[in-house]
Amino acid sequence: MSEPAGPGAPGLFDGVLARGPVREAVGDRAWLQAMLDVEAALARAQARAGLLPDEQASAIARACRAERFDVTALGRAAAGTGNPVVPLVQALVAAVDGPAAGQVHRGATSQDVMDSAAMLVVQRALGLLLSDLDGASEAAAALADRHRATLMAGRTLLQQALPVTFGLKAAGWLSGLDEAAVRLTEIRRGRLAIQLGGAAGTLAALGASGVQVADHLAADLGLVAPALPWHTNRVRIAETAGALGAAAGALAKPARDVTLLAQTEVGEVREGGPGGGSSTLPHKRNPIAAVSAVASAARAPGLVATILGAMVHEHERAAGAWQAEWRPLNDLLMAVGSAAAWLRDCLENLEVDPQRMRANLDLTHGLLLGERVTAALTPALGRLRAHELVAEACAAVSAGGPPLHDELARRPEIRAHLPPAEVAALLDPAGYLGSANAFVDRALAAHAARRRGTGS
Amino acid sequence: MSEPAGPGAPGLFDGVLARGPVREAVGDRAWLQAMLDVEAALARAQARAGLLPDEQASAIARACRAERFDVTALGRAAAGTGNPVVPLVQALVAAVDGPAAGQVHRGATSQDVMDSAAMLVVQRALGLLLSDLDGASEAAAALADRHRATLMAGRTLLQQALPVTFGLKAAGWLSGLDEAAVRLTEIRRGRLAIQLGGAAGTLAALGASGVQVADHLAADLGLVAPALPWHTNRVRIAETAGALGAAAGALAKPARDVTLLAQTEVGEVREGGPGGGSSTLPHKRNPIAAVSAVASAARAPGLVATILGAMVHEHERAAGAWQAEWRPLNDLLMAVGSAAAWLRDCLENLEVDPQRMRANLDLTHGLLLGERVTAALTPALGRLRAHELVAEACAAVSAGGPPLHDELARRPEIRAHLPPAEVAALLDPAGYLGSANAFVDRALAAHAARRRGTGS
Amino acid sequence: MSEPAGPGAPGLFDGVLARGPVREAVGDRAWLQAMLDVEAALARAQARAGLLPDEQASAIARACRAERFDVTALGRAAAGTGNPVVPLVQALVAAVDGPAAGQVHRGATSQDVMDSAAMLVVQRALGLLLSDLDGASEAAAALADRHRATLMAGRTLLQQALPVTFGLKAAGWLSGLDEAAVRLTEIRRGRLAIQLGGAAGTLAALGASGVQVADHLAADLGLVAPALPWHTNRVRIAETAGALGAAAGALAKPARDVTLLAQTEVGEVREGGPGGGSSTLPHKRNPIAAVSAVASAARAPGLVATILGAMVHEHERAAGAWQAEWRPLNDLLMAVGSAAAWLRDCLENLEVDPQRMRANLDLTHGLLLGERVTAALTPALGRLRAHELVAEACAAVSAGGPPLHDELARRPEIRAHLPPAEVAALLDPAGYLGSANAFVDRALAAHAARRRGTGS
Amino acid sequence: MSEPAGPGAPGLFDGVLARGPVREAVGDRAWLQAMLDVEAALARAQARAGLLPDEQASAIARACRAERFDVTALGRAAAGTGNPVVPLVQALVAAVDGPAAGQVHRGATSQDVMDSAAMLVVQRALGLLLSDLDGASEAAAALADRHRATLMAGRTLLQQALPVTFGLKAAGWLSGLDEAAVRLTEIRRGRLAIQLGGAAGTLAALGASGVQVADHLAADLGLVAPALPWHTNRVRIAETAGALGAAAGALAKPARDVTLLAQTEVGEVREGGPGGGSSTLPHKRNPIAAVSAVASAARAPGLVATILGAMVHEHERAAGAWQAEWRPLNDLLMAVGSAAAWLRDCLENLEVDPQRMRANLDLTHGLLLGERVTAALTPALGRLRAHELVAEACAAVSAGGPPLHDELARRPEIRAHLPPAEVAALLDPAGYLGSANAFVDRALAAHAARRRGTGS
Repeated sequence: MSEPAGPGAPGLFDGVLARGPVREAVGDRAWLQAMLDVEAALARAQARAGLLPDEQASAIARACRAERFDVTALGRAAAGTGNPVVPLVQALVAAVDGPAAGQVHRGATSQDVMDSAAMLVVQRALGLLLSDLDGASEAAAALADRHRATLMAGRTLLQQALPVTFGLKAAGWLSGLDEAAVRLTEIRRGRLAIQLGGAAGTLAALGASGVQVADHLAADLGLVAPALPWHTNRVRIAETAGALGAAAGALAKPARDVTLLAQTEVGEVREGGPGGGSSTLPHKRNPIAAVSAVASAARAPGLVATILGAMVHEHERAAGAWQAEWRPLNDLLMAVGSAAAWLRDCLENLEVDPQRMRANLDLTHGLLLGERVTAALTPALGRLRAHELVAEACAAVSAGGPPLHDELARRPEIRAHLPPAEVAALLDPAGYLGSANAFVDRALAAHAARRRGTGS
Repeated sequence: MSEPAGPGAPGLFDGVLARGPVREAVGDRAWLQAMLDVEAALARAQARAGLLPDEQASAIARACRAERFDVTALGRAAAGTGNPVVPLVQALVAAVDGPAAGQVHRGATSQDVMDSAAMLVVQRALGLLLSDLDGASEAAAALADRHRATLMAGRTLLQQALPVTFGLKAAGWLSGLDEAAVRLTEIRRGRLAIQLGGAAGTLAALGASGVQVADHLAADLGLVAPALPWHTNRVRIAETAGALGAAAGALAKPARDVTLLAQTEVGEVREGGPGGGSSTLPHKRNPIAAVSAVASAARAPGLVATILGAMVHEHERAAGAWQAEWRPLNDLLMAVGSAAAWLRDCLENLEVDPQRMRANLDLTHGLLLGERVTAALTPALGRLRAHELVAEACAAVSAGGPPLHDELARRPEIRAHLPPAEVAALLDPAGYLGSANAFVDRALAAHAARRRGTGS
Repeated sequence: MSEPAGPGAPGLFDGVLARGPVREAVGDRAWLQAMLDVEAALARAQARAGLLPDEQASAIARACRAERFDVTALGRAAAGTGNPVVPLVQALVAAVDGPAAGQVHRGATSQDVMDSAAMLVVQRALGLLLSDLDGASEAAAALADRHRATLMAGRTLLQQALPVTFGLKAAGWLSGLDEAAVRLTEIRRGRLAIQLGGAAGTLAALGASGVQVADHLAADLGLVAPALPWHTNRVRIAETAGALGAAAGALAKPARDVTLLAQTEVGEVREGGPGGGSSTLPHKRNPIAAVSAVASAARAPGLVATILGAMVHEHERAAGAWQAEWRPLNDLLMAVGSAAAWLRDCLENLEVDPQRMRANLDLTHGLLLGERVTAALTPALGRLRAHELVAEACAAVSAGGPPLHDELARRPEIRAHLPPAEVAALLDPAGYLGSANAFVDRALAAHAARRRGTGS
Repeated sequence: MSEPAGPGAPGLFDGVLARGPVREAVGDRAWLQAMLDVEAALARAQARAGLLPDEQASAIARACRAERFDVTALGRAAAGTGNPVVPLVQALVAAVDGPAAGQVHRGATSQDVMDSAAMLVVQRALGLLLSDLDGASEAAAALADRHRATLMAGRTLLQQALPVTFGLKAAGWLSGLDEAAVRLTEIRRGRLAIQLGGAAGTLAALGASGVQVADHLAADLGLVAPALPWHTNRVRIAETAGALGAAAGALAKPARDVTLLAQTEVGEVREGGPGGGSSTLPHKRNPIAAVSAVASAARAPGLVATILGAMVHEHERAAGAWQAEWRPLNDLLMAVGSAAAWLRDCLENLEVDPQRMRANLDLTHGLLLGERVTAALTPALGRLRAHELVAEACAAVSAGGPPLHDELARRPEIRAHLPPAEVAALLDPAGYLGSANAFVDRALAAHAARRRGTGS
């Protein structure tokens, strides 16, 4: 039973920290195929530029299938050359029949292949990641819409502050997820570019055809054609990392809220679906998806810092900084992809308990509405006196007295200006939601516009 | 002589690490004024929404001048309330005459003022930072254009690899700087938004006027009106940080290259202008500006990580994460601003030595062109044999033999296919620059388009 | 009223993020004095080695008083030389009368003064920081001892899990604080070393006396004499940073717990002392100290990363990495010092509510003891069957049924093996605390040993 | 040929970024075995405490062999429970015959097993890492000793400054490596502790035997017995991370210097051994080992930050922070292990070119000794005048004049005090090395003491 699965199989921590489809999309097999896709497209681009007969390009392209190559052997050989492209090109030359073998990798350098492949890997992984991110944002949108009238306590510094709705809270989550998706989509469409510069960024070996080949290569691979090679200008990589880092935060925020709302003492939500049992405590229902989303996302800031710290490439190819990028970029895609998959799970299966929300909102016996009563009394009593009176009443409630309604009613100076019915109305949280509903509408509209492709 | 200057005065390390105008733009005085600008604009917005007489708004706005408040006292008082807005509002109320005093800060919460002020501070600081970044990119563009024919060795992994031009190298710098500027400009124009949500994000205290007041506030301050309050959705902050982190890398790359090119053994550039003398070594000319740019930029990745790590805000206001943002965002602006000011200095005063570049290019006696000779022999001899022959000749040169030209000429199999004149032509680095010039043109065109405001 | 205080005065965010005495100890004035202390001690060390008449050393030392120098002017001048030591030495030479002026800074280089001064600053700041850390750990020890019998719910993944005591929780806090203090004390005593190497680390200008002068300098300043100059070996700095980073985490953990325990719905602790009022919500009691401790500590990981990232110093003096260390090291001391001061405040004034703890523990009607009942039934029924039966009863309780005691009592298969009195005993949380008390004892003993100076 | 090797096989980037034995020691198989080692030792510890018959402990221990379990299945199942221990315990129960099955994992919680296993993994990996680190430091020591008289230019800010020896430079490398090894050894011996606390840190399920079982467990596993469980006190993990981060810097520094010394224009060292050929440039000799060491080490700061950022564990088990530690700790061990293996390769095979060092030292025609001449003239001329005269001569040399010797000799004011022979002696770099040799001795002595186990 213990036969190890291939390098593509998930590892011991991957169930928690590398959930979802991104893991495979950034795996060794995916990278290998991406490098081969670049080699194949390079041959076709040169054929299109007249540097190569079409048949030779086809012969090369036919050999560019990942399953024909040995990832582990390439990885080992990379130690001798500093990157896996050198042994891959050797193996590819051996795999191509006839004169086309001599045309493999023509005019390119290892970094051209690695960087262009990285862009393909990012493009594919981002597609999968965005799909889970969209799933999470759809779920948030549904919660926002469904719970626009579900009252709950708004909490600041973890203290109950004012009434809000669960719909507004979900709209806040949605807004963050949408903004993260907008930027990742911009990156995916507009910033992923081929790299082709040759050994020192001049494309000298391609003579006068360099720019043309580069443009054909970009078109073939569905990537942007950059103004010039970016081998030592890593802004594209940094922007990708920055957008992923922001997405990690946008994903972790709702997950964090879920863990807080699911606390035994709060009990306003719980994760549905299977899972979440404790190994020793049968009654516990752990918010596994939310916890795993938080954990996955927590790796992002450090990985972004590593990528940013590796932007300083010396001269025409870095002596370490380039190589230092490879793993963090992969890990970052995987971590954020995992967070997106987990949050989608979490929100799609979230069980909300409006009764408990309301009960918690009433825990302080009306104190959350004190601000509102003060405001109502201000025109008659002045702000200072109004504040004093209400604060006094609130203090009495806090000290274990009756609900705020009664404390207010027993004070003649208040009663003189606010009849009991008016006090009761002021203390109804449903009447003190300000623009909550308008904000939900705006968040949903922005989401719908983004999903239709018309969002900004 | 030792009277301390105010808190706005530069500190001991600021000459090196906080050069340029951004330091003051993110200083306490600037923050204080930004917070007051928000309070003033809030009053005006409420007047425009009919919640306040215009005179009261004017009375509030008149009091909103930073010089009337005591930064140190506010900072101290902030310890008791968790942020400096609470004491500022108290001081502002005291500074406003008449009934308008009661209208100060109406409906807002501390975070509304801090967050909106932060956006103003970012907007102003980015303007100054972009000006230095533009200065640096103009200087890079001038170098790219002027040195498009200046031959030098391209270096990969710090080894000479192939000929390039200094113009191409500068175009690469330019490209990174331009991309960084494009993104920062996008952020500045499109992502800096007011914050207005009240105590829990509902704007409850503004009744039905919340959205309207928020929109007026945005218009007044020249900031974006967000779909809903972003008090616990920090994607805007994260995107700003990410863009600054990428800019730091784009600024450090040319600075790093300058330090390498200025090495005693390389000597291809040196920093002009005053400064750079050593305390003990009279002959040294330290590349102070480049070194200081590298040092300033080096703070960015860790600061970005801190900001990203602080994105997880609990419920309706964070219990620590929000406060954790304040300093890193300021420090990041200052660090990147300093790097921009230093790189501008560095590039505007860079002294380039084309003779030394050419001499260094000739250090290896033609070896850098070996690839080209191989390519020229390949049609006749096949790639493998061509490679063998040239490698043999190169090895002889490396071992101390005569220049490559002579080593090639003495080999009959080579001579048979390449007459000496052709060898000499092949070994002329000026003839092996591929698309270098085209790339310079493209980089300059992209730069010009960006500066005209038509760039992407 | 708005006269700016000096550069030593606290800024707008310092009340929250730079609390405590460390802020001044890492301020410009403190740095300046530390640099002057190094210059004075260097002169004395040279006198002791016979390189200088004692009177000249005294003349130099007399001039080494920070109040005689202009921080701002030095900071500005540093921009021209790359560090503030060059202008400081010039000013010091001018301030010394007679022939001694020519002996100022003899044989040293700027980095010698900066690095040695940094060690003095660290030594002094760590002393203050450790004092607040000790205050916090004393408070934690007192809580651990006082509350060893105070029952509360242990919570895992924010779900109630098993009974613990508040004493055990405080002992856990104590343990982390003590470990952090042990390491910082080791660093302070054993790893802070003078730097003296001259321009390239050979002390060439001191002829045969270099090692002797260095040893005298160390003795004079109360710092370690290193085997050789460490100008480009930054392990000492990195270890200091690492210890501070660990301390930040140890400080934030209890603060985080306090914010969670202080939640409106949990209410088991609250911060005493003044402060904590909300700007708009009179009833709120914000855990300002805990929140500010969390916020202060949150800056540490990114700062540590920056310092570690700046360890790669080129050759005999770094071209940027050294300068990049200055601010993060200062900021790190300040951030961790602030966290220590805040946590001390928090724990020294913490109000604990044992009744509420007990009430929360009973919220699940006995479910937390299910594990114990299962264990008691296992000998008779086997683990599997015992688990099934108890899980069934727990599920009934969770679904709104009667307390676990009744659910268990109503099941004949359980009753057959556990009479009601025994069930009641099993469900008493005070009887299911395992080694909690022993752990409290061990933590207190370790703390006492450390405080007596005999701890490991 | 393309059969995927197991999950233990190196991946595409591992040849470069995960060199050496640590990769396997932190692999899934190693983790699985470590977790099983903990389960086996837990059973034995309970037997020793009389809670279990010895035969049952033996039966459990016999089943604890990694090859009997399916890593991938466990990893997948972990998604449902939040960690891989729950499914592992289920599989282990199934693998144990007879009544012992019911005793598996008794009294422990998942985190106990993961944390204790983590300590075993760290212990084993650090052993291997230290072996490579020792190899690198031995190589550095040999270079320091062999090249104590090899003159070369000392370089500050990448400018030649003063003569040093290559031996002194290597001694500086050695010093950093030794300090890193000392701290890692301290951690390995004194800070790696078992974790045993049960579900909430009380060991309630072990009744009165908890402390005793914990102490037996520690003895069995060769780990420290902590005063109390450290499930939410992560200082041990943070200290381990900090020490690894410092080691990364100490490893990267010499590697960085090698890349600089190996520059085409400097040429003072080159990497021996196979490898280093360029894919397109036959003449290049890339310093692959040094570059790969730099790249491997570059991941460390961000990983340390992530681990430090994950220290804030809520209550009795974290909701995300604990899980966030797993991968970064593994990655950090692997990255630093890789850097150690690479640097060892690099230094053990380093080819040093003393002639080229000397030639580079002479590049500035004596300027590096200007400081010395100034000092020699100072007694006669005063410091100011001496400095002026020498600076003038140096400027003339810099401007293309004759060597400094001649420039000095032609100035009567100098000649009056320094006869030509004395000038020549002053300009001999071998005579201006100060304490270089003494520093080499001290570094070698400290190294020898550490290797004998008597170092501090």
